[in-house]
Amino acid sequence: MTQPSIVLHDFQSQRPKHHAGQGSILEWIAAAHAQAEITLRQPDTAEEREGITRKLHKLVLRFGCSTDRISTRNAALDDFTHTDWDRMRIFQLNRFPAGKPCGERSRFYGEVVGDAFDRFYAGEADPPDVLIHVTCTGYVSPSGAQRLVAKRDWGRFTEVVHAYHMGCYASMPAIRLAAGLLARGKARVDIVHTELCTLHMDPSQHLPEQLVVQTLFADGMIRYRASGPERAANGLEREAGGLELLAAREEIMPDTEDAMTWMVSDFGMQMTLSRKVPDHIRACLGPFLDRLGEAAGLGAERLAERALFAIHPGGPRIIDELAGHLGLGPEQVRASNAILRDYGNMSSATLPHVWKAMLEDPEVEPGRLIVSLAFGPGLTIAGAILRKRG
Amino acid sequence: MTQPSIVLHDFQSQRPKHHAGQGSILEWIAAAHAQAEITLRQPDTAEEREGITRKLHKLVLRFGCSTDRISTRNAALDDFTHTDWDRMRIFQLNRFPAGKPCGERSRFYGEVVGDAFDRFYAGEADPPDVLIHVTCTGYVSPSGAQRLVAKRDWGRFTEVVHAYHMGCYASMPAIRLAAGLLARGKARVDIVHTELCTLHMDPSQHLPEQLVVQTLFADGMIRYRASGPERAANGLEREAGGLELLAAREEIMPDTEDAMTWMVSDFGMQMTLSRKVPDHIRACLGPFLDRLGEAAGLGAERLAERALFAIHPGGPRIIDELAGHLGLGPEQVRASNAILRDYGNMSSATLPHVWKAMLEDPEVEPGRLIVSLAFGPGLTIAGAILRKRG
Repeated sequence: MTQPSIVLHDFQSQRPKHHAGQGSILEWIAAAHAQAEITLRQPDTAEEREGITRKLHKLVLRFGCSTDRISTRNAALDDFTHTDWDRMRIFQLNRFPAGKPCGERSRFYGEVVGDAFDRFYAGEADPPDVLIHVTCTGYVSPSGAQRLVAKRDWGRFTEVVHAYHMGCYASMPAIRLAAGLLARGKARVDIVHTELCTLHMDPSQHLPEQLVVQTLFADGMIRYRASGPERAANGLEREAGGLELLAAREEIMPDTEDAMTWMVSDFGMQMTLSRKVPDHIRACLGPFLDRLGEAAGLGAERLAERALFAIHPGGPRIIDELAGHLGLGPEQVRASNAILRDYGNMSSATLPHVWKAMLEDPEVEPGRLIVSLAFGPGLTIAGAILRKRG
Repeated sequence: MTQPSIVLHDFQSQRPKHHAGQGSILEWIAAAHAQAEITLRQPDTAEEREGITRKLHKLVLRFGCSTDRISTRNAALDDFTHTDWDRMRIFQLNRFPAGKPCGERSRFYGEVVGDAFDRFYAGEADPPDVLIHVTCTGYVSPSGAQRLVAKRDWGRFTEVVHAYHMGCYASMPAIRLAAGLLARGKARVDIVHTELCTLHMDPSQHLPEQLVVQTLFADGMIRYRASGPERAANGLEREAGGLELLAAREEIMPDTEDAMTWMVSDFGMQMTLSRKVPDHIRACLGPFLDRLGEAAGLGAERLAERALFAIHPGGPRIIDELAGHLGLGPEQVRASNAILRDYGNMSSATLPHVWKAMLEDPEVEPGRLIVSLAFGPGLTIAGAILRKRG
């Protein structure tokens, strides 16, 4: 069914407080795992302690995401800037080998996200009609979105919606929900992602799968607006263009329920991630792309030949694997790789960063199609076809 | 702006496993608080233990919701059926005075909600187009909704949306989101609420506010469908009628951010609730109702005279207080009081239970207007005007 199109525009990202190279982050994570293990095992001698430290350093460097795929990442928490465990807010690993339990993580999340909303809207005089807050890394009410609306006295004009706990693909349901709200008469629907993934690291878990997760995810915050096409064209927006939504589709793959899980656990939120996820995605990708393309009247083959691909970097190799599978050239996945390299996996905030990069890149010409793909628990595969506007 | 109307219909509720009288629940809660305090303080003598037990029994009966407002409540967890603390799954209070930390609560939630989705859809051959899962009491992915879709192999037909962590008023954003999805071409949007509020009780917290919360909230699960009016009329649904949505509105009241909070904490989720909440609601209710009525072309006075009121029982006295404030007669709030009496406060599942009761009540004639009101962190006040169909 053909739908009135909507436009995503006015992207603004906010860099979390601390920016660090992946090399030094890996060193910090190795030290954290060693300290957690030392706290758990209470070794008697300096030699034993050194043995643990050496072993975990080796493990983290072996299984962690290396600096050739991720070069820098951002984080909100001061803890990551030193290894004085006594001074840590969450990762007081000399007392709590998994870091502190959930409450302190929630409080910190609430503070950071409250500030982020204030900054996102500092220069904004007019309230949006709807504010969709997207996260899977912090559940605190009133949320940053609700506190902003209360502070600015926008309560009579702005409805807040929480689109929480969907995972890395959540920008897709968010834009589908926004499209629906626009279809029901709202004019300005803002979407704000605030993901503090690094808050949920558990340095007492040394399995390879956990080392991949902990060295891959980062914090990220981004805001954008969804408007009907007539409104986005009126020249008021910071970016004249924007991305037009041509089609969106979401599926759950059969027999993959346990391949990825994400839940509130004792010490923050806990992820599990099977090594088979890339296989599952590859197995369903072709037919999924056919159906997604069909919804926009476009053949999947033509998309693979000519579109750019905004691929959520769910794992360090997923962009390469999907590009290989679909026969995409390096230019078609350049922005996806660049965001992974410069920011890591910021969960649901990642794809909007890729979209922003494509919008701002003068080499991406108006009219260019962008196929967006993201994945999450279910396993869910979510996709959208966007077109860069002039 | 006038919108194409949507219809809520085909309500089905599921009773959680254990049904108990409020009197015996208060006794259990008193025993739990006593055991938590005994575990924390480790008194030396039987006398001291008895003193603690007597004191907490008195406190719970004094501040807890009494049997004249709530007569029975339901809960999923076996723990509430005995006081053998060693056998408890969550409330092993002889070892954990606040109950176990979040992980075990999440696991239990996942099991119960998985079963609930299976039962809700056991007799259903056709997949809905969208399944909106609403909860503020358990964050587990894949969710019960996602697992159902995977198991039934509905992944290509059904999109899952999580509308999580909005609180007691969440049926309102859920129906607004459903309306939007229907406007974008979906035909069958199902909404399923699964709230296991009792999982988050913390018997080590004896403040009056906490005693109110712990003796008020209960578990509840309900499902219903949102359809465009032409589809709901085609006779396929279990209930020929349904409730037509005439208007919906949501506001955040100024300067009330700290009056109610709800966040993931160390031992489950933690609520705070100021005694001023009813005052805040009363202060904004009149103008809010004016604006809500306006959106449906109806004056607030006429609504107060003639409509039925589905009022979320956020506290034990809120129905009385709002009824008094608006000058409503007992018949206008009968269903709201009946649901509070028979089920307690089931968070977001409560209002849908009130709607179901009104739909099934032959004394509520077709054409009757229903004003729905609910409240949550923000403070958010959410309202809808519904009309019972013939």
